[in-house]
Amino acid sequence: MTGHPVSYLDDVVHQRVRLGILTIAHEARRVEFGYLRTNLEVTAGNLSQHLSVLEAAGLISIEKGYAGKRARTWVSLTKQGRAALAEEIRQLKQLISQVEHVGTPPS
Amino acid sequence: MTGHPVSYLDDVVHQRVRLGILTIAHEARRVEFGYLRTNLEVTAGNLSQHLSVLEAAGLISIEKGYAGKRARTWVSLTKQGRAALAEEIRQLKQLISQVEHVGTPPS
Repeated sequence: MTGHPVSYLDDVVHQRVRLGILTIAHEARRVEFGYLRTNLEVTAGNLSQHLSVLEAAGLISIEKGYAGKRARTWVSLTKQGRAALAEEIRQLKQLISQVEHVGTPPS
Repeated sequence: MTGHPVSYLDDVVHQRVRLGILTIAHEARRVEFGYLRTNLEVTAGNLSQHLSVLEAAGLISIEKGYAGKRARTWVSLTKQGRAALAEEIRQLKQLISQVEHVGTPPS
């Protein structure tokens, strides 16, 4: 360990709403905009902004289309997004482990 | 579960640098400003801003004093800060568990 676990966290991934987007997209092959909005309890504008940040970083791909006559936006994790989420989880586990081992003598 | 784990995360606590401050302060009874700065790899100005947010939320207390002739700032977790960190950890574990159980059938 050369630094604290949070030094290895990427703000693009760690930010609360974006972490939610990546987590939900990880659970399904692709996920619809309205589903994200409801589950993450954010406004459409706020969600759009976070999706743009993730898309610009190459972590998600966004697909626009129709379900019947209704315009729909679908979000999928890219391979890079999957790796970034895995790395975030790895660092969070390290952090949790440090918090929970306070009080035990150093090995 | 009525919402996604990130819905229960508090941005005050979850933000990367602030999560680092709370984690380090949790490890020691009190921690010095310079130690936080080095470990979290942030500028003094950036660290000061995050400390102000945490202090305003009642999660840390800040004490100013001297070590010999040198001015020092010490940071301690409040009881409320300890509870907030514990809640963050609880929600992160829930989130990690959801990410890692993708693919298993719902119970």
